[in-house]
Amino acid sequence: MPDFAEPLERVIQQFKRLPGIGQKSAQRLAFHVLRTSREDAARLAEALLDVKDNLGICAECNNISDAELCPYCRDSNRDRSQVCVVEEPHNIVGIEITRQFFGLYHVLHGSLSPLRAIGPEQLKIKSLLQRIGSGGVEEVILATSPNVEGEATAVYLSKLLKPLGLKVTRIAMGVPVGSDLEFADEVTMWKALEGRREL
Amino acid sequence: MPDFAEPLERVIQQFKRLPGIGQKSAQRLAFHVLRTSREDAARLAEALLDVKDNLGICAECNNISDAELCPYCRDSNRDRSQVCVVEEPHNIVGIEITRQFFGLYHVLHGSLSPLRAIGPEQLKIKSLLQRIGSGGVEEVILATSPNVEGEATAVYLSKLLKPLGLKVTRIAMGVPVGSDLEFADEVTMWKALEGRREL
Repeated sequence: MPDFAEPLERVIQQFKRLPGIGQKSAQRLAFHVLRTSREDAARLAEALLDVKDNLGICAECNNISDAELCPYCRDSNRDRSQVCVVEEPHNIVGIEITRQFFGLYHVLHGSLSPLRAIGPEQLKIKSLLQRIGSGGVEEVILATSPNVEGEATAVYLSKLLKPLGLKVTRIAMGVPVGSDLEFADEVTMWKALEGRREL
Repeated sequence: MPDFAEPLERVIQQFKRLPGIGQKSAQRLAFHVLRTSREDAARLAEALLDVKDNLGICAECNNISDAELCPYCRDSNRDRSQVCVVEEPHNIVGIEITRQFFGLYHVLHGSLSPLRAIGPEQLKIKSLLQRIGSGGVEEVILATSPNVEGEATAVYLSKLLKPLGLKVTRIAMGVPVGSDLEFADEVTMWKALEGRREL
């Protein structure tokens, strides 16, 4: 490896710890920082610490928030009868971007995973039951990931919630829009067939 | 766009200013920072400022350095008779990684570009002439980019240096190793033919 000056090497190592950033990208970012003004570097440095210091969790839905309630829970225009359950705060982004959901969210902060010793107690399930208990919720949409852990979590929650007389739904699984059928794997194809809808 | 809590939105905006980082990557990085410890975030923040505060330019070759001389200029094992001229400090990385060059470097900090009003005075050419003037340099390798500005810079330097009785060389241009000839553009192919070597 080339000999970088120590501060440069250090920032490269720190960039490499970020997801999706390898040696080459880290070098590119580091050399970019070298070229920018100190103010720009300071703004990024501050923003990093600010995230750690000034963000907490929404008291209602466990989303990331800089206030007691997150923007969705604060927004009185949102439909309080629908609660969409997701694994992580960033999953909300993918749903919001569709502009098709106007209800509230509930963030579990994980999914059931016996292998990683994550049981129901490690997830924010108790607070979900409390929210439902306080009334007004008519439908719970389970939007956990379409993988083993996400599926297990959805099944667990549906067994827990259905006896409460709620409508419990699961997001559809099938072939992604814009893809070529040729490349669909067999499980996805099976789900796509199973979930077919009449036209 | 989804409503992010303000500190999160701010760090996303700061990440987006880095090269090659779009909205999605910036979100991913921001959510990663959210999940890591405060110490990790602080280490990155510190490293960023450290780069701006503790790095200067090598007095000899203009490479990035945290001391008066950069690691290459300090290294007494390197061949002082060869000087490889590059446009930017990060170009040194690409050359060092080959482990085939053991001489010194000279960083111009740019290339001639009349359109961007960059003339010879804006580049570190005077200090290159001083280095050569102080003796010991036998060959100058022009490793500027194979584009219009890099070529112009190489031609300009070669005219300047040849009268000094130096060997002035230019890195080879041709088809990249491992590529398919089918995809070589005509100028590259022309350079590859022009630069052909007897076997």
